[in-house]
Amino acid sequence: MELLYETLAAELNASITRGVLRPGDRLPSVRLLARQRRVSVATVLQAYLRLENQGVIEVRPKSGHYVRTRRALELAEPRTSRRAASPAKVQVSTGVAALSASMRDPAVVPLGSALLSPDLLPIRALNRMLAGIAREVSTAGATYESGPGLLTLRRQLARRSVTWGMSLAADDFVTTNGAVEALHLALRAVAKPGDAIAVESPTYFGVLQLIEELGLKAVEVPTNPRSGFELDALEQVIRSTPSLKAVLAMPTVSNPIGCVMPDDAKEKLVKLVTKYGLDLIEDDAYGELVFDSPRPRPARAWDREGRVLFCGSISKTLAPGYRVGWIAPGRHMQRIEQLKFAFTVASPTLPQLAVAEFLASGGYDRHLRRLRATLRGQVDRVREAIAESFPAGTRVTAPSGGFVLWVELPQGADALELQSRALARGIALAPGPIFSARGRFAHCLRLSCGFPWSPRIAAAVATVGELATAQLARRRSA
Amino acid sequence: MELLYETLAAELNASITRGVLRPGDRLPSVRLLARQRRVSVATVLQAYLRLENQGVIEVRPKSGHYVRTRRALELAEPRTSRRAASPAKVQVSTGVAALSASMRDPAVVPLGSALLSPDLLPIRALNRMLAGIAREVSTAGATYESGPGLLTLRRQLARRSVTWGMSLAADDFVTTNGAVEALHLALRAVAKPGDAIAVESPTYFGVLQLIEELGLKAVEVPTNPRSGFELDALEQVIRSTPSLKAVLAMPTVSNPIGCVMPDDAKEKLVKLVTKYGLDLIEDDAYGELVFDSPRPRPARAWDREGRVLFCGSISKTLAPGYRVGWIAPGRHMQRIEQLKFAFTVASPTLPQLAVAEFLASGGYDRHLRRLRATLRGQVDRVREAIAESFPAGTRVTAPSGGFVLWVELPQGADALELQSRALARGIALAPGPIFSARGRFAHCLRLSCGFPWSPRIAAAVATVGELATAQLARRRSA
Repeated sequence: MELLYETLAAELNASITRGVLRPGDRLPSVRLLARQRRVSVATVLQAYLRLENQGVIEVRPKSGHYVRTRRALELAEPRTSRRAASPAKVQVSTGVAALSASMRDPAVVPLGSALLSPDLLPIRALNRMLAGIAREVSTAGATYESGPGLLTLRRQLARRSVTWGMSLAADDFVTTNGAVEALHLALRAVAKPGDAIAVESPTYFGVLQLIEELGLKAVEVPTNPRSGFELDALEQVIRSTPSLKAVLAMPTVSNPIGCVMPDDAKEKLVKLVTKYGLDLIEDDAYGELVFDSPRPRPARAWDREGRVLFCGSISKTLAPGYRVGWIAPGRHMQRIEQLKFAFTVASPTLPQLAVAEFLASGGYDRHLRRLRATLRGQVDRVREAIAESFPAGTRVTAPSGGFVLWVELPQGADALELQSRALARGIALAPGPIFSARGRFAHCLRLSCGFPWSPRIAAAVATVGELATAQLARRRSA
Repeated sequence: MELLYETLAAELNASITRGVLRPGDRLPSVRLLARQRRVSVATVLQAYLRLENQGVIEVRPKSGHYVRTRRALELAEPRTSRRAASPAKVQVSTGVAALSASMRDPAVVPLGSALLSPDLLPIRALNRMLAGIAREVSTAGATYESGPGLLTLRRQLARRSVTWGMSLAADDFVTTNGAVEALHLALRAVAKPGDAIAVESPTYFGVLQLIEELGLKAVEVPTNPRSGFELDALEQVIRSTPSLKAVLAMPTVSNPIGCVMPDDAKEKLVKLVTKYGLDLIEDDAYGELVFDSPRPRPARAWDREGRVLFCGSISKTLAPGYRVGWIAPGRHMQRIEQLKFAFTVASPTLPQLAVAEFLASGGYDRHLRRLRATLRGQVDRVREAIAESFPAGTRVTAPSGGFVLWVELPQGADALELQSRALARGIALAPGPIFSARGRFAHCLRLSCGFPWSPRIAAAVATVGELATAQLARRRSA
């Protein structure tokens, strides 16, 4: 049976969650409330103490009790995802469709897709280089740039790999249509239909879509929001899943978690994969966006046997619409070239030429330094706004790089419903279940911070917070 | 037992095949040969008559017998390919690797890949448009052109579809990375691993590669070198193959055969597919290259139920290195959009913008008229050269469009061996077996006529002919 003070605390908490009482509001004095509710002063004090312990209200000396200004709070981070699920057939395509549709509507506030504002990209400079090349190299594009792809681009990638903390050669690369094609070819090279792939939990829905379409199965491995894979759990998964062929991970800035695996964990990961004769598909799409410099080395740096298929692109740093990506497939080189030829023959020549020139120009590092600082600021602003307007008990990641936040709403929240309600208000967000092969994370969502902070973004984040609060209130009162 | 005159005829034929006696050479007089060989005049006359009937030699009144000047000959066309094989797992990837590698070596004479000389493409004009767009549209490429792809390009395709003899809307199209990606998505949309697809025989190796990689099976349908699919045989295949999900064909200029299905055959094909609840994947990559204008309508023009997935690209007409293609997927629209997003997210924006501008400019039709006439000429020159230097008994297609020839060498020839020997002499060619799911067409090859006639091309064709002749002689004497 619920005690009197517990009932009172719950009631007050609901008022706060619903926004009736807002951060900074003063609560009724102990005496007044006791009189109103016809309860003892001790009961009110006990109720207030409970709310204080829950971090919902605070005492200001000589002033009274206030709804906590949550901006001041260290927002809690999400917990490590739960134990590994057994291999699962994937079904995320339907959930992703709404997200991808909203991405194309400029009237929608872009908190959904992991897309950067064009204002943050050096697109004008890049397009100028493309224009110059198109004018000068009169036969560029007249033939298929097949095989491993444009040599001048592969040379620049090799040069760049030194700044990544390793040293690849031009001949180690195959260029692709963005990182997603690289992942597609990599999955095909290492696994056949029915095989299993170990993935982070939560993990990028694009990976889950590919796994679904290729007839593979995903095994979700417990993932710590600070350090990535729980390696003991991963080894357990490997031992107990005979059909497991590879591990797919984003060790340097994961999506949606934003964590970076420590160097020793990366080394262990590569050793683990090697020990069991597996492959590691390393998605480095966000690797250049680590907030602190220098960027940590990719797991590939510890690979001695060619077991790491290293995938990357310029979509999160330069120009997503150029569709330039790459894979350094290690021991699968020949097979990847063959697959590239079979599925898209070659990548377009001119975008590759322009990107090669941009990478050679030296402007890239300058741009990355600015971009990282900007994104860190944008991510902080959105975190703060979440703290201000999201329901109490909300947890959110403190990413080490990139520009997305993983938000864990209080249990009972329904992110898919929230997605439709937000979209009806002109706001896109990415619901948690599309980041899981088993539709987990029903109460989670990913918010993108790819656009500069503005009243429009501020209002949108606040609206999502209100919608979540209202949803929880509805569900609690139902 | 071989009769005396038969032995003599075979001997003479071998001398001609080996090139000891060459086109236009006079054969020994009947009397002289009879004396030399110590046979009767009647035997020699019978031998000469046999060779005459075989089309190897000719009588010139009041002059004697001559090795036929084959240039003057109507070269025989290949016969309709044999009865349908049962569904076969496909294995062409290895054979294709050599072809694709040779394609990238400019020192190799390009009779292998179906690639046009840059000199025949309006690449300079197209690149100029791209340069203008890249300079002016400063944010082009800053975002994913996802979903169905660039609207301005789809509008131009809709406009163009009228000249194809049908009337599609912009919303009927999804843009792709060349026709090969369109075929990939189409195959995925209509079939699951283990399902069967009916194809022409011979058929484009790219299709067989996709079928192989997707775990599908190919059923080869007898194909007439003039009119395409034997429709009765196709219906039999459909009835006897429960796992058959779709028919994949190039009804308007097939590759490698170069034939165009007559209108009524196209109509019947669509009716057949509809009757049995299947889909037709129509590859129109060469559709614009029919020699006679106006170009015949695609099969899609007869489709009433959205059962034809119409695929095309600019790779054979404008710029293969732009990687711009499309699919009008009929009733599979939603699924194709989803697949496009899952596998490559979007196609590059700027090449699509440039192609849209080129199509809008009106220069396309002018270019196509010139290109068709040029290709017809090039194809004729190569046919003539084949007639001059290839072994007697060689058959070759008389294509209605495009720029490849399908060559059927006398039985016993080994095109794969010929490919390596030719490559050792710096000449690429496409061996017959890569055009079959079952490695048929061992004695066939495809020669590309995509480059302007030149002493280099002439010498290369002659060399291939000599190599084939020598190979046959070696095998016959072995």
